[in-house]
Amino acid sequence: MPQPASTPAPPYFAVIFTSVRSAADPDGYEVTAARMLELAGEQAGYLGVESARGEDGLGITVSYWSSLEAIRAWREHAEHAIAQDHGRTKWYSRYSLRICRVERAWDFEAENR
Amino acid sequence: MPQPASTPAPPYFAVIFTSVRSAADPDGYEVTAARMLELAGEQAGYLGVESARGEDGLGITVSYWSSLEAIRAWREHAEHAIAQDHGRTKWYSRYSLRICRVERAWDFEAENR
Repeated sequence: MPQPASTPAPPYFAVIFTSVRSAADPDGYEVTAARMLELAGEQAGYLGVESARGEDGLGITVSYWSSLEAIRAWREHAEHAIAQDHGRTKWYSRYSLRICRVERAWDFEAENR
Repeated sequence: MPQPASTPAPPYFAVIFTSVRSAADPDGYEVTAARMLELAGEQAGYLGVESARGEDGLGITVSYWSSLEAIRAWREHAEHAIAQDHGRTKWYSRYSLRICRVERAWDFEAENR
């Protein structure tokens, strides 16, 4: 089962991407979404990712990065830029993108559960 | 269908809560989770919330706040504190909590989709 991302002590940066899918091209979307997660993981400054889409259609993906420069480089990555363009023209009816500085963080893990 | 939260221009603050549910007490969890979303919305400084849990069990809830003081007051709210305690003793096998300052934000909305 996926787990919360294991990130270093703050400060670091987060990109919160909240989206509503259109009905268009579900297969193409799935292939590209998986490829983007793989490609993001290969970028300098990548710290981790968490992603969930509920039955109601709202999706949240949070990626974590060591610097704003790393986020900018990922946004401008050629293959990612093509995916972003398809996102706007086909796959999403709406999204919000927020760039954040993570100031404090805690983890909890239950024993024997 | 739920939508991305409508938040003001940055800066503001976000709490990213990423969790894995235990198998325990699903009914009690659902009731309290809904109540906490309702109660959060009544707090001073609350700006909005986004929440998704995927079929794989990973859940992400992001709440938005006008200040760190508003986040602290919500964390210390008596009814919320009881829910947090049940979260640690019953409902979650693991979670991460991150407090962030939102520095930049964009929205996209497709026409006619």
